[in-house]
This record gives sequence, C-alpha cells and structure tokens, in this order.
Amino acid sequence: MTIINKQYRLAARPHGIPKDSDWAFTTEALPEIGTGEVLVRNHYCSLDPAMRGWMNEGRSYIPPVKIGDVMRAGTVGEVMASNSPEFRAGDFALGTLGIQQYGKAAAKDLTKVDPSLAPIEHFLGGLGMPGLTAYFGLTDVGAVKSGDTVLVSGAAGAVGSIVGQIAKIKGARAVGIAGGADKCAYVTEELGFEACVDYKSDRFLDDLKAALQGGIDVYFDNVGGEILDIALARIRRHARIVICGAISQYNNTTPMRGPQNYINLLVHHARMEGFVVFDYLSRYGEGTEKLAAWYSEGKLTFRNHIEDGIENFPGALLKLFSGENNGKLLLKVIETPT
Amino acid sequence: MTIINKQYRLAARPHGIPKDSDWAFTTEALPEIGTGEVLVRNHYCSLDPAMRGWMNEGRSYIPPVKIGDVMRAGTVGEVMASNSPEFRAGDFALGTLGIQQYGKAAAKDLTKVDPSLAPIEHFLGGLGMPGLTAYFGLTDVGAVKSGDTVLVSGAAGAVGSIVGQIAKIKGARAVGIAGGADKCAYVTEELGFEACVDYKSDRFLDDLKAALQGGIDVYFDNVGGEILDIALARIRRHARIVICGAISQYNNTTPMRGPQNYINLLVHHARMEGFVVFDYLSRYGEGTEKLAAWYSEGKLTFRNHIEDGIENFPGALLKLFSGENNGKLLLKVIETPT
Repeated sequence: MTIINKQYRLAARPHGIPKDSDWAFTTEALPEIGTGEVLVRNHYCSLDPAMRGWMNEGRSYIPPVKIGDVMRAGTVGEVMASNSPEFRAGDFALGTLGIQQYGKAAAKDLTKVDPSLAPIEHFLGGLGMPGLTAYFGLTDVGAVKSGDTVLVSGAAGAVGSIVGQIAKIKGARAVGIAGGADKCAYVTEELGFEACVDYKSDRFLDDLKAALQGGIDVYFDNVGGEILDIALARIRRHARIVICGAISQYNNTTPMRGPQNYINLLVHHARMEGFVVFDYLSRYGEGTEKLAAWYSEGKLTFRNHIEDGIENFPGALLKLFSGENNGKLLLKVIETPT
Repeated sequence: MTIINKQYRLAARPHGIPKDSDWAFTTEALPEIGTGEVLVRNHYCSLDPAMRGWMNEGRSYIPPVKIGDVMRAGTVGEVMASNSPEFRAGDFALGTLGIQQYGKAAAKDLTKVDPSLAPIEHFLGGLGMPGLTAYFGLTDVGAVKSGDTVLVSGAAGAVGSIVGQIAKIKGARAVGIAGGADKCAYVTEELGFEACVDYKSDRFLDDLKAALQGGIDVYFDNVGGEILDIALARIRRHARIVICGAISQYNNTTPMRGPQNYINLLVHHARMEGFVVFDYLSRYGEGTEKLAAWYSEGKLTFRNHIEDGIENFPGALLKLFSGENNGKLLLKVIETPT
C-alpha cells in the first residue's frame, strides 16, 4: 500500500481575500528522511491570521512562502519514523510542517509534546503559539498590572480569549470586543471577562464606554482599523497599546488604514508597541510552563474550532477573516480509515 | 503717564490656518497685583506649534484657551513690582503670561532666570521648554544610546535643532529633515548633524535612504503626516518613535492622517510613544542643569528667529506652519522709547 501525502501549495500571491485559484492541491509520496530527520503524520494544522501575511511578497519578520511551496503552517502529529535519537515512533511532535498530511523536519525544528498533559491540539492553541502570543504580549509588551483595565479585540479568538484570562489572573479587569452576541456571551460566561462588547451592534460605542468604566490602561490589538482608533480615543495616561495583529486590514486591496488618533499617545504619554511571538523564542520555556500550570489549575480554558479534512483548507482559512470561527481554528488533516 | 498694555486675545476658534479675524487686539491698563503676586514687563513671547492646539475646543493635556482670553504663551521679562519675597523689581522672570506686554502671576508660577548665564530669550528656547522637550524626549522617551542613528524632523526648528545636538553629545548619529537647502546647511554646518535631508527636494527619499546608512533607531517626530510614514518604513529592530508633535496636521480641516506604516512596529518590535514636556515637570531642574552645562561648554548652540512688535503677532505665528522661521520663533513685545 502506497501512502499518499495530500498537500496545499501556494499557487499565486492573493490580491485581497485568497481565492481557490491561489492554491494548488497536490499529492505525492512520503518523503525520505535523512540523518537527524523525523517523519511526522500530522493530525492538525494550525490556521492563523499571520498566514495571510506570509502569502505576500516582500520583507517582513519572516520570508514569504514561495510560489509552489507547501503552505507554511504550524502542525502537531505523531512521529512515524525517526533518524534522530530525540524522537521515536509514537511520540507526538509540534512543528511547522505546513498544510499537508505528512512532513519531515530536522529533530531540532520539532518540539515533543506530552499528550497526557492536554489534548494534542491545545499545543497549537492555548498551550502553543496563540497562548505564548497572549502571554508575552500582555505581560511583557503590555506590562499589565493589577487594577489595570485591559481591552482586547478578537476576544473570542485564539489569542484574545487567552489575553483576557491572563489579565484576570494578573488582577486586571478584562473587557473584550467580539462580533455577535454568541461570541460575547462565550467571552463573559465561559472565559470570565468582566464585559464583552459586540462591535456589530448599533450600540457598540456606548456599550464600550460603559464597559470600560473610565478608560483603557492596556489595549491588546488583534484587529487594527477603526477599532484601533476607537481604543486610542479612550486611553488613560501611560496606556500601552499592544500591536499584535491587524486582521481587519490583511485582505485590503487599498493601503492599510493608519490610526488617526495616534496623537493621543502624545496627549496621554502613552505608547504603542508591536511584537511577534518569535521575538520571545528564548523565553518559550517560561511561557509554556506558566500556561500549562494555569491550565492544570483550571484558570485557563481553551476552545478549538476544528474543521475536518485537508480538502477543506481554502475555505476553512477564510473563516478567520469572516469571523466565522469560534475559538482557535484548526484543520484536522489526519484521515480515519473508512 | 498711563502705561497701556497691548494684548492679543482669542476671538474665535480657527478652522484651519488661524485668520486675522480669529484674534482681537485689545489694550488695557496695567493689572493691580495682590498678595504674593508679581507684575512683569514681558520682553519676549514664545511662539510655539503647541499654541495651535490650545486654540481648539476639547480635551487635551491642558484646557483650551477660552474665547476672549489673552492668548496663552510662554514669556520672559523684567519684574516691575512684586508683592512676594521671592521676586524684586529688576529680576527676570519666565512665565506663561500670554501675548501681552505686561502680565501678572503668582510668584509660584514664575521662574527666576539669570541673565548673566545667557541672553534671556534663550530661556524661552534652548534653555527653556524647547530645550527640555528635546532633552526628555530624546533621552527618556527615545532612550537614545551611543551608536544609534537618530532621525529628527523639523531639524532646524526650536526642538529639532537641540534633539540632534543632544544625540551627538550622547554618541549617536544625527540625521535631520528640514525644508530647503539653507536650513539643511545650517543643520549640518552650524549644528553639526551628520546629515540633513531636504523634504522639499525631488530626491528626498533617495537622499534620506543614503543619509540613514541602514535604518533608524530613534525617530523624533515633530511633523507627523507623510514623513512619519516614511520614517516608519525605515525603522530598525527595537526602534523608538518619539511623538513630540505633528505640525503638518495642526491646521488640517480634514481628519488627522494616521500612520499607515504603524504595522512596522509589529514587524520590528518597535514602539511609538508620545509625551509633552509638562510630563517632566518634576525633572525640569535636572534638564535645565544639563542644557545649561552643555551650552556653557559650547556643545549646544541655539538660534532664535525674532519678530519685532506685538502688533505683528498673527502673522508671526503663521511662520511656524509655513516653515518660514529660522530657529526658535520669538515675538519681541517690549517697545523701546522712540
């Protein structure tokens, strides 16, 4: 029996929202592994807003995905074969093997995960990059402290949901912004934020004002655009604006919208600082330990939104931009025998 | 002989560039002084970009000037009479007495200046607010360090000219942006910046790229608008963008232009932080001491642009926005007997 590896490759650089024709679905035989390499059968691929940026040409914090390459994505799966003493068949490994069912990597580019600690998909979510992004963004860039009012956009999303929970652990008030009553209910009832405001509501501005109870000490921005400006209009003295993403702008075919209210940084002696999680590579151990401890103590809860089947990748990715996902978006690529 | 006090009062809130009809020229008798108060004959009024903001309605870091009030401005002059033990006639005093020839204030709201240290007008410039703005903005907000490349806009202006000189004192490379060849020559030849780029030139972008020799560690922004975006496009990792002003935007009748390239803060883990000099009130002593020491050692040079005659106030103020001033803009309001 020949095992076939199904893959999605980048066929063209998208203009605006990625179209089906921007992707090529390919199949090939399993790769051979060389010395020090490991073959992994992916169970889940991570679908993240940052992937949209990796599809564009030009300089950023990492090189763009090349046309014809398997689309870059975080993955978790089971080791099938290993030429490294660090892994053996049956281990579970986190990596960046891309949108495909099987992949290989040097052992140094994989991280072993312990499936007894949490379901393995959590290592792509709350115990993985999104969790680390929330942790370092809020505690280091945002310098959150007890008594702060923390506003976070994309509050029902992979990163935002954890930002608010960590804010509460740190003694701050967590106010979320999310799209729709269902997401807002999840944010307050299940995640325990003090408030969540629906940006699709006609009452958004009034509701936000009421929820903030006076102003913002930390705004954790996942969305950019108009909401960033609205937040800048409500900052307190010495506020910190954490620029984590700008999902409202990633598919723009017109120039990025700049925050007109940036001059409030001057008025309130506030700062706006950006980061990507890779900046904290040397501190991943610390972050993962904190997240795992809070998770095991029941202080952090994670929700994954799992789409099933590698064939559904192009449509699944778009849910990030339409806001249809509820929680961390994952693509299940392992096929169970029928 | 009755002494007449000539004044400029705010008559209307300007829409865009202030017009003559936004001002009322008034005369009145000298004010009486009460207990603890001091009467000052102003020699110079300071004309600063921030004054444009004080003319607008709405919340900012200080309340707006009320319609009908004497226009707020920094002043330096000679004490004529004092009901406070802290001042006597003949002392020189720095204050915020506004655009008028005489004014009174509580002694606690005045600062004595020593005319043997420097010409008194320097206490409105390099040894005053503009100097302190440059000092705290560059050293505290910008956290300048040896080896940095510091870019400053408005490099021939009151604040920018000092920013670059302090950058050099701190061991950084100073690159200025100014309007026109004359100003650029002044910045490099008299102030000693390593380079100065003319934003009015067709070659501006190429010249800037060459002058920066690789990128920006600190951008000290006095102008906002397009130049802020151009700077954001050239920041290095961990760059600091100091938001000191946005003179290109102060007379806008359309919304403020936001910096589209703010997302580069994320890519380069950089920060943008605003301030006003009043934030550092408790450290003015430290700042003034440093500036005076550097001035006496010949490490700082100041240039004032003096307009003569209080009647010329409305037109003189506009030179800030047209860029016609060469150095710190001052209005001489003392009249010499004819």
